[in-house]
Amino acid sequence: MAVGEFDLIAKYFARPVRRAVLGGGDDCALLQPTRGMQWAVSTDALVEGRHFLSTVPPDALGHKSLAVNLSDLAACGAKPVAFTLSLTLPRVDEAFLAGFAEGLYALADAHDIELVGGDTTAGPLNIGITVMGEVPPGQALRRGGAKPGDELWVSGRLGDARLALEAFRGQVSLRGEAFEDVRRAMERPQPRVALGLALRGIASAAIDLSDGLVGDLGHVLRASAVGATLRLADIPHGVHVAACSEAQRRTCLLAGGDDYELLFAAPASAHARVRDAGARAGVPVACIGTLDAEPGLRVVDTHGAPVALTERAFDHFISG
Amino acid sequence: MAVGEFDLIAKYFARPVRRAVLGGGDDCALLQPTRGMQWAVSTDALVEGRHFLSTVPPDALGHKSLAVNLSDLAACGAKPVAFTLSLTLPRVDEAFLAGFAEGLYALADAHDIELVGGDTTAGPLNIGITVMGEVPPGQALRRGGAKPGDELWVSGRLGDARLALEAFRGQVSLRGEAFEDVRRAMERPQPRVALGLALRGIASAAIDLSDGLVGDLGHVLRASAVGATLRLADIPHGVHVAACSEAQRRTCLLAGGDDYELLFAAPASAHARVRDAGARAGVPVACIGTLDAEPGLRVVDTHGAPVALTERAFDHFISG
Repeated sequence: MAVGEFDLIAKYFARPVRRAVLGGGDDCALLQPTRGMQWAVSTDALVEGRHFLSTVPPDALGHKSLAVNLSDLAACGAKPVAFTLSLTLPRVDEAFLAGFAEGLYALADAHDIELVGGDTTAGPLNIGITVMGEVPPGQALRRGGAKPGDELWVSGRLGDARLALEAFRGQVSLRGEAFEDVRRAMERPQPRVALGLALRGIASAAIDLSDGLVGDLGHVLRASAVGATLRLADIPHGVHVAACSEAQRRTCLLAGGDDYELLFAAPASAHARVRDAGARAGVPVACIGTLDAEPGLRVVDTHGAPVALTERAFDHFISG
Repeated sequence: MAVGEFDLIAKYFARPVRRAVLGGGDDCALLQPTRGMQWAVSTDALVEGRHFLSTVPPDALGHKSLAVNLSDLAACGAKPVAFTLSLTLPRVDEAFLAGFAEGLYALADAHDIELVGGDTTAGPLNIGITVMGEVPPGQALRRGGAKPGDELWVSGRLGDARLALEAFRGQVSLRGEAFEDVRRAMERPQPRVALGLALRGIASAAIDLSDGLVGDLGHVLRASAVGATLRLADIPHGVHVAACSEAQRRTCLLAGGDDYELLFAAPASAHARVRDAGARAGVPVACIGTLDAEPGLRVVDTHGAPVALTERAFDHFISG
């Protein structure tokens, strides 16, 4: 049975709208922005082999597709409001659609946001999401506000997603519960929305970690025209990354990719307020370095001795 | 030379922002909605073989990708403000990127809108755009407002894009200037934004024609809970469609696809105001039928005799 575009969208994605004035099914969705608020917008597409493996369960893919976009709103300290979905599918696979919609909506519901527009087309699998959120004028976290002397912080723990990728690639051997642990980090990242909101007025700059610590920190340093000293031993990680060889651990921590944690700077005087923001958001935060007037990135070991840096950004365009 | 995602985006798509508070290059773009206005949002992806042929010049593809999205804003009577672009490309092809960006920005400039966020990934060619526009509360044109007794109107002329597709497929023979004429309609549709704005407060319902007249009219009829009588002879078309066989002409006019004209309803008492709106927008408008209390679609010939209807919607998911 041929199921047309309209039926497909309706069956798995149509829901009554709640806050939106008009939801999907017309030419446009209509939203009423809260008076005086700024509108934060971000878009990210997910492509098989770049952002996810063919082995990913559909519900995890639905979750991750929205999660990586919400992570961008989190990095701006914006409160998520709505999103659109543009889904290109090789075929009408109802089991896939049902699972994908389930994972997508579970995360949308957790953040109380609505799907307000959709588009489904036949073609190689491609998942495009645009998220919209609100932030009071002047309060958005940006990449460009870090100052020399600020402390550098990161949320959660890094490297598990990259370790899972290495395990899928057969580069490391992980079994049973250990494999499931890191696989969960790769397939079901938790966007740090509550932390982003809690850091408004505290953090001087922020970015979400999608391409690895070194690469994404580089964006902050360039935008803020500062340098940084990063303490390798203070980068938070789990037991599976700790059990790796030193070279593998450095790859996972410095060039991981897909961490979807927040990297942010804050004045040293705000140290306790940052800890408090993390506690309120229920997310561990770790101070991993300082920002310097001297340009460039310096990585130091537990003794403060310099560590030569060979890692670069995890680039979804170039690498696999 | 490997050119990374960031360099690519910067080289062809980065521009200083004008109206946006913060443009691409941070985690989110920041926009300041005009006080009291509603926000109209729509998303459409373009996939090779479904929405365009591999023979399309890159600048035409850049134009069309934005045009089909602006057409959705036009159908809502929304004023375009900004858009995001998610570009999945099989390889770094600088000639393609330069042409694509040129066509995209020419249309963006013509409508005074900004690219506020982008994402570039490696993978099968896929172009995802989300457009955002503004409309005063209660003034958005929707699909569901048509009333029995309203007149049915369409802008421009229909069928040229479908005729071009048939020519590319070898189903009809068109040469030289004739082929270039219809090819232009297929590859460079003009979104009827000015007409959509001019129809605010006049049209009772509107939709843009992307999937063919019969299919898209069906959406309006269902949403408005009305029927319609469509006068086949009054559907505006050009000389090349006129020269077709009757069967081909009917396919082009009723099930064309890719027309990107506005189909709208308005009270008969507003007939002169609709003509005036078309004149102000510089777009021809033609009255092609009436809306009826009786459900269903009736197509009649020049003598008012019923014409049996076999055409269906042009479905980008199912058909080629």
